[in-house]
Amino acid sequence: MANLDPRFADLPTPCLVLDEATMMRNIDRLAAHAAWLGVSLRPHLKTAKSALIASRLLTGGDGPATVSTLAEAEVFAAAGVRDILYAVGIAPQKLDRVVALRHAGCDLSVILDSPAQAEAVAVASRTAGQAIPALIEIDSDGHRSGLRPDDPALVAIGRILKDGGAELRGVMTHAGESYNVSGEEAHARFAEMERAAAVGAAETLRAAGLPCPVVSVGSTPTAHAARDLTGVTEVRAGVYVFFDLVMAGIGVCRPEDIALSVLTTVIGHQKARGWVIVDAGWMAMSRDRGTASQALDQGYGLVCDEQGRILPDLVITQANQEHGVIAVRPGSSATMPDLPVGTRLRILPNHACATAAQHSSYHVLPADQGSSLAEWPRFGGW
Amino acid sequence: MANLDPRFADLPTPCLVLDEATMMRNIDRLAAHAAWLGVSLRPHLKTAKSALIASRLLTGGDGPATVSTLAEAEVFAAAGVRDILYAVGIAPQKLDRVVALRHAGCDLSVILDSPAQAEAVAVASRTAGQAIPALIEIDSDGHRSGLRPDDPALVAIGRILKDGGAELRGVMTHAGESYNVSGEEAHARFAEMERAAAVGAAETLRAAGLPCPVVSVGSTPTAHAARDLTGVTEVRAGVYVFFDLVMAGIGVCRPEDIALSVLTTVIGHQKARGWVIVDAGWMAMSRDRGTASQALDQGYGLVCDEQGRILPDLVITQANQEHGVIAVRPGSSATMPDLPVGTRLRILPNHACATAAQHSSYHVLPADQGSSLAEWPRFGGW
Repeated sequence: MANLDPRFADLPTPCLVLDEATMMRNIDRLAAHAAWLGVSLRPHLKTAKSALIASRLLTGGDGPATVSTLAEAEVFAAAGVRDILYAVGIAPQKLDRVVALRHAGCDLSVILDSPAQAEAVAVASRTAGQAIPALIEIDSDGHRSGLRPDDPALVAIGRILKDGGAELRGVMTHAGESYNVSGEEAHARFAEMERAAAVGAAETLRAAGLPCPVVSVGSTPTAHAARDLTGVTEVRAGVYVFFDLVMAGIGVCRPEDIALSVLTTVIGHQKARGWVIVDAGWMAMSRDRGTASQALDQGYGLVCDEQGRILPDLVITQANQEHGVIAVRPGSSATMPDLPVGTRLRILPNHACATAAQHSSYHVLPADQGSSLAEWPRFGGW
Repeated sequence: MANLDPRFADLPTPCLVLDEATMMRNIDRLAAHAAWLGVSLRPHLKTAKSALIASRLLTGGDGPATVSTLAEAEVFAAAGVRDILYAVGIAPQKLDRVVALRHAGCDLSVILDSPAQAEAVAVASRTAGQAIPALIEIDSDGHRSGLRPDDPALVAIGRILKDGGAELRGVMTHAGESYNVSGEEAHARFAEMERAAAVGAAETLRAAGLPCPVVSVGSTPTAHAARDLTGVTEVRAGVYVFFDLVMAGIGVCRPEDIALSVLTTVIGHQKARGWVIVDAGWMAMSRDRGTASQALDQGYGLVCDEQGRILPDLVITQANQEHGVIAVRPGSSATMPDLPVGTRLRILPNHACATAAQHSSYHVLPADQGSSLAEWPRFGGW
């Protein structure tokens, strides 16, 4: 097979390839939809974990942004992001780092759903001599964390924050169950569940005389499907920057919209079993099997040629640490093409967040096709 | 709950904790068994990816060792390891790095199972002006790669290597299917399958007038269960350095022998659903669900208190990127203990290779209990 780019063939495999033009289309699509909805977009930076990609996601360059770890908050604050929501329930032990970032000039806010956490944030606020802003997490779909909007603890927590010297900034919710339903109609229903839960909680707080300036909702499926976000001030989403097979499987994007792939090399065959063995195992792809419960199981990833063209019904059916086994999808009548040892292929991931996390950099096919292949670092850790 | 060590409580969570004394018992156990069997032990360094742990695994400090990536070979060669087997089928594009390491003084050998790879190694040997040593991979159990010992390609590949200017160093096999059977008797049968396949292939090569000095076998289950390795020269194993729940589930170790855990903090509750939410999600644990197909499904990990004592039947039942949901194992009559926000717990991993790969360092509880907590770096990449 011909090479996409002569420099491409020199990349050591496995490695992560990012198609910048596809990524920019994904970024522009949701930015346009948020503008049409009339809400602010607060992209989640946990998927990319890259300052260069953050600068493309954040229109103003300095926020608003969402993160999943304090390490992300620290890296992005150092890169100039000034408005960050740390969207994982705060542990009391982490408040020192929150205060340090706020002292350094970053408007970092936290989330919580219990009186114990609110007390800890209030104590830390008084100790630090500044009000730490907190959003109360609302459970809109039974997915994970948060208070139901009618939970009496909502107002109690709001009072602990406000009266204790912290800042009650608002409410937030995330309909993670929207990943388990397919199609725009279903995602629109979850978007309305998010909206109704968050706006209802905000109204309860306001009726109790408490402030609630921010009403924050979002997940990639609901952000794209929402039709009316009356009462909501901002929407969050993360994986849309790259998209992946899980999102394609529930109809949020097409496989062609996936900007991320793993470049791999054929290292062997078991012809009697119909297997082609490549050097992308679970270390390169991650162990994520998010499409296993979908209508179309993509194994550990869908196989493309080096140019990124999908090879129909070829998937990684098994993965060991540094071996992937490519086979024709069970039930398919596709035939295995001739893929000699040394052939380069690209694999689309089930879950972009998980696959990207296995790598320390992106090899970027620039949107400007005349430009050189770039390497953009990414980081991890907590 | 009391802290194991005051310094422990200052660790940011999630993070990786390594109990050095437990690790040293695991290392000593297999070293003693290999000595009893009368074979050389070639530990696989892909699990730990740490020069400090390699120095404990490799008795002489300089080998023999096994690796799964050329990045590992490069790091360990720079740290003084002088005898390394790169145990993933060689891609022609990677031979430049193999030659560079050999020129730098490391006796790096490769594996292959096709004439095309043998031709590439022969060409690279002639170009480099030195014979690159290669082992032919043998398939002893239908697991993945390799030639069946009676495949006529075996001798053909041996001739391509020998006549083409490469070095035919021997044969190797790995009974990866031994992970799917439980108990010492079953593992001993797989050990005999490895031995018979590798020794049979070696005899075929020798009968054809070809050299076969090395006969290499191994997986963690078979290495521990083998009773007679007549004809074998060396045994390989990797995950035994830490052990994990998958190995405990098939009876190679006890849960108490697992040296690795993830320290995590309670960040919330959903009491009506019996959930405790912690900050160890799949980013900290990996997406590995290796116990899902075993008799006892351990979810995303088995929960211990901060001192490492197992909390019976508490497992991580769901994992998102930075959230883990702890619940009582379905069907158990155990009750959820009181675990307030801020409580520290330790989680035993399904698969030590996968969990360790999510972290950049080990926080080491030293074997000498009077010593300070140490931090040992680990690396990744290819």
